[in-house]
Amino acid sequence: MNDLRQKVSSSKMAFLKTASIEAQQRSNALKRIADELIAKTPQILAANEKDLEATKPLVEKGEISEALFKRLKLSESKIRDMAVGVQSVEELANPVGKTLSCLELDRGLELFQITVPIGVICTIFESRPDALIQISSLCIKSANAVILKGGTEAQNSNQILATIVRDALRENNLPVDLVQLIETREDVKNILTMDDLIDLIVPRGSNEFVSFIQKNTNIPVLGHASGICHEYVAQDADLNKAYSICFDAKVQYPAVCNAMETLLVDEAISEQFLPEMAKKYLDAGVELRGDQRVVAVLQAHDIDIKEASEEDWTYEYNDLILSIKIVGDMNEAIDFINRCGSAHTDGIITENKEKALAFITRVDSSSVVWNASTRFSDGYRYGKGAEVGIATGKIHTRGPAGIDSLLTYKYVLVGDGHVVANYSGNDARKFTHRKLEKSW
Amino acid sequence: MNDLRQKVSSSKMAFLKTASIEAQQRSNALKRIADELIAKTPQILAANEKDLEATKPLVEKGEISEALFKRLKLSESKIRDMAVGVQSVEELANPVGKTLSCLELDRGLELFQITVPIGVICTIFESRPDALIQISSLCIKSANAVILKGGTEAQNSNQILATIVRDALRENNLPVDLVQLIETREDVKNILTMDDLIDLIVPRGSNEFVSFIQKNTNIPVLGHASGICHEYVAQDADLNKAYSICFDAKVQYPAVCNAMETLLVDEAISEQFLPEMAKKYLDAGVELRGDQRVVAVLQAHDIDIKEASEEDWTYEYNDLILSIKIVGDMNEAIDFINRCGSAHTDGIITENKEKALAFITRVDSSSVVWNASTRFSDGYRYGKGAEVGIATGKIHTRGPAGIDSLLTYKYVLVGDGHVVANYSGNDARKFTHRKLEKSW
Repeated sequence: MNDLRQKVSSSKMAFLKTASIEAQQRSNALKRIADELIAKTPQILAANEKDLEATKPLVEKGEISEALFKRLKLSESKIRDMAVGVQSVEELANPVGKTLSCLELDRGLELFQITVPIGVICTIFESRPDALIQISSLCIKSANAVILKGGTEAQNSNQILATIVRDALRENNLPVDLVQLIETREDVKNILTMDDLIDLIVPRGSNEFVSFIQKNTNIPVLGHASGICHEYVAQDADLNKAYSICFDAKVQYPAVCNAMETLLVDEAISEQFLPEMAKKYLDAGVELRGDQRVVAVLQAHDIDIKEASEEDWTYEYNDLILSIKIVGDMNEAIDFINRCGSAHTDGIITENKEKALAFITRVDSSSVVWNASTRFSDGYRYGKGAEVGIATGKIHTRGPAGIDSLLTYKYVLVGDGHVVANYSGNDARKFTHRKLEKSW
Repeated sequence: MNDLRQKVSSSKMAFLKTASIEAQQRSNALKRIADELIAKTPQILAANEKDLEATKPLVEKGEISEALFKRLKLSESKIRDMAVGVQSVEELANPVGKTLSCLELDRGLELFQITVPIGVICTIFESRPDALIQISSLCIKSANAVILKGGTEAQNSNQILATIVRDALRENNLPVDLVQLIETREDVKNILTMDDLIDLIVPRGSNEFVSFIQKNTNIPVLGHASGICHEYVAQDADLNKAYSICFDAKVQYPAVCNAMETLLVDEAISEQFLPEMAKKYLDAGVELRGDQRVVAVLQAHDIDIKEASEEDWTYEYNDLILSIKIVGDMNEAIDFINRCGSAHTDGIITENKEKALAFITRVDSSSVVWNASTRFSDGYRYGKGAEVGIATGKIHTRGPAGIDSLLTYKYVLVGDGHVVANYSGNDARKFTHRKLEKSW
């Protein structure tokens, strides 16, 4: 615990030191990382091979999923993609020190609001070793310190990647502890108590894991425990759009958080829409679970599906399974989404603009989608480049989070001997509070 | 507990309902509150009188401070000020639904980022009944629901004020539970566990109280436990500016969080600066506590002061007491502030621009001040109108927080049947990611 505290303290020291180092050095370190990923490809693959060998028996025993094993496996082309990713982060404009606003308080007394890094960020991620590179490069670019905890199964891969990153920092005279690795679950537990040193936790992983983190720390958490996304097909939907959007939202990649888990269908069009939609799903191997009315509508067309249980309405399948419910009107759909959803991404399919606007205003989710698939809701598609995570909370950042979510701001007040006493009492000076178009 | 949960649930319902109600109705309710404060002044003063009578014996016994008693006491002019405050919040532009950014993802697929209220906010404040009106009006203007816990000693005053607010909501067809009062400490404790219903807690009060809240909830907290502010007088300071800034920062109103608690003096000018500064402080009744070198410098001028203990460097006096330390250079000042400060507001006094910029960049506080008093750091002086609180955390809001801190955003994606499948595979469409100057 004391060793860990020292380690985390030195992340904080590294963060504070970095504030006085030119942005160019951070860029140079990123270039170096990209180059070294390519130069050290054989060594990275060798380390990764060790991880794969150690993990294979666990896959055979069924303790680790095939999907996880796939994400763990690196290849020459995956490493090339990682280097390209670092390069593209390097090419972003320096996000630190940008002026968000400037206000004249009085003659010669100016208040700037400027972007600054957050501080020490702890991210915990699963088996994908490329996540280490992605997160490190975002943090270096934004002058944050980062503490990384990768999956145990990726331990050798993560170690060599972290060494490449830290060597690049050292060679560019940046504090090497700007990026640090921790390796045990015990460390994660202990880190959750260090709210005096860590400013933000970004957990990526299973629902249970993210919920555990959220419940067991006072440190702000950026992330989402679950992604229970809905599409609501309204009475005035263009059914062709509805077929293809609903198909895409479930089938195109069901294992991810922005895939639809529950389909809501307006009763006015349910008999017309459901049978054809159900056939498309069944042809694609989707298991359907409906409420009583959905089951009945489909039965009339000789389609037998399972009845959904109460748990189905708040469950994230991450799989080719879909629950379907008929709702009486849009109000019922909105109430259902606000009650059973996870504030991730929810959509409406309608040609009625007024209805769409009401839905958008009243659904309390971080992303609301009109006539498009929920699957668009991620950092890359939202134009953020690399993604830190997707936030379903209300505070700081919502929805797909990019490098902008690793920044906060600071107020800088520049005066010329100004004192508050002159602004009170009988001859009080008045504040001008005049917006200025001025940059820091 | 179950009753309380129901109460908080109905705040959440009120918040969700308000999303579909025109902003004009919220404005009308605010106008009505302002009118009723004036119309009901005699009744408000009568209720306040009851509180004052119940509190007087406690003041005599020394259980409640004179200062608190003063803040509890309302007057006709204080009530008029409250009404003017509500009016000025009413006159603000509607902060909800503003477009923060608009990005074209592809032809016909547009991503808007728009401001939305946060949800259910719980604020806990001390004896000042006018805080109830200020916070309620900010929350109504920004379409948030608010749960208020005022000081027990202000119970009668708070009840009549809350009734005025709730009546105004009802008369304007807004959900009356948009503003609710809770009254026991037990309720506060229980509310800290309701992270599924409450989105933000804003505690205002003593260090111990705010720390308790921060340590005992997973709900995001906006606020500050302590305000340990510094001024650093650099070698190249204009000493006349330094005298008046340092005097103002300590003496003008020492009971508040943005008053200076520790003065750092560069050794190069300490002999020149300290004796005269010390005399000004002593004339104003300030108790000085210095490190050994400060004590020695002043002793040479026949000024005897107490030596500071280790605790003095991290203590918020909120009183006419000041600790003073001599530092070897600016680096030592910065390290000291980052270690012993509370990230509230810290200043440098210097005519050297390069030094000032370095200090501003490296001091990790929410407000950094150059050649001005730390006392400027509050919502009113920063041009935010009414103040929700001052945040010393890194996440969501930093520094003085106004109505903008009661907002978050939501992504709205508008398509025309767009599906993700078209953007993958061999014939993948490319995203355009083109910024648009378009409003929602």
